[in-house]
Amino acid sequence: MAKEIERKFLVRGEAWRSAAESKSVLKQGYIASMEDRSVRVRILDEKTARLTMKIGRGTLTRDEFEYEIPVSDAEELLENAIGVVIEKTRYRVPYEGFVWEVDVFAGAHRGLVIAEVEMQTETDNPPLPTWLGREVTGDFRYSNQALATEFEHDRHGLSHTA
Amino acid sequence: MAKEIERKFLVRGEAWRSAAESKSVLKQGYIASMEDRSVRVRILDEKTARLTMKIGRGTLTRDEFEYEIPVSDAEELLENAIGVVIEKTRYRVPYEGFVWEVDVFAGAHRGLVIAEVEMQTETDNPPLPTWLGREVTGDFRYSNQALATEFEHDRHGLSHTA
Repeated sequence: MAKEIERKFLVRGEAWRSAAESKSVLKQGYIASMEDRSVRVRILDEKTARLTMKIGRGTLTRDEFEYEIPVSDAEELLENAIGVVIEKTRYRVPYEGFVWEVDVFAGAHRGLVIAEVEMQTETDNPPLPTWLGREVTGDFRYSNQALATEFEHDRHGLSHTA
Repeated sequence: MAKEIERKFLVRGEAWRSAAESKSVLKQGYIASMEDRSVRVRILDEKTARLTMKIGRGTLTRDEFEYEIPVSDAEELLENAIGVVIEKTRYRVPYEGFVWEVDVFAGAHRGLVIAEVEMQTETDNPPLPTWLGREVTGDFRYSNQALATEFEHDRHGLSHTA
């Protein structure tokens, strides 16, 4: 079990791309989604798959349990996903000692670009790159869970504008 | 992924005990419970733990995905179980080529004894021991899921009488 602490922002422009050092393609969906917990399946670069359970109500931290599972199981589980299966390309972008993950969404959320940074403690204070837009930490509408299961943008007021 | 096909009965009396060949202690709870799917954590004899996802609406068969997880994770997950954590002793009772699992419940469901037999195909026809009572196959009230999450006997008309 690991604690997850992160900050999340919308992204402005393309300046981050020149600093990206690697990328991978993620395909993921939710097998269960409840207010205080979720069960997610993720396939990484079509080669490995993980099952992740997150439990807790904290905005910055949640309990997280993660297990590797066979890709064939993951494919079958995603056929039973709740809501949409999300596909996105994740870029790793180092910036002043922290690594940002920039997610460029495809499919139902094309146009949405989100940057996240993971911190060791809640008091860590990562320097903010200039290409960050509005902070959406703790905004449930921009969580993976909401993007998968509550994908009607108009109803939830989801905006791609950074 | 495995298909699960089983028949389930209440149990009458104690005659089955003399035929029991082994037993184990199960502690289990649900991390997620929805109409057509569930995520269960089970600790076996306090030594091994498994995460099991069942998906599907079929009465006799459901898709089942099962993974071994660390016991320490399982203990933490059970602290976040929905409903009650169920404790029961499971006896293996062979009878004419089939092995019955007889579950003797403790705690909230003390007094309840359920026998299950797993079949290879839906057309298998296991001989029925005389100590079986009423068949409850497909009766959601006697599912592990319902026993954990809908444990108010009176409201759901759950009876322990075989």
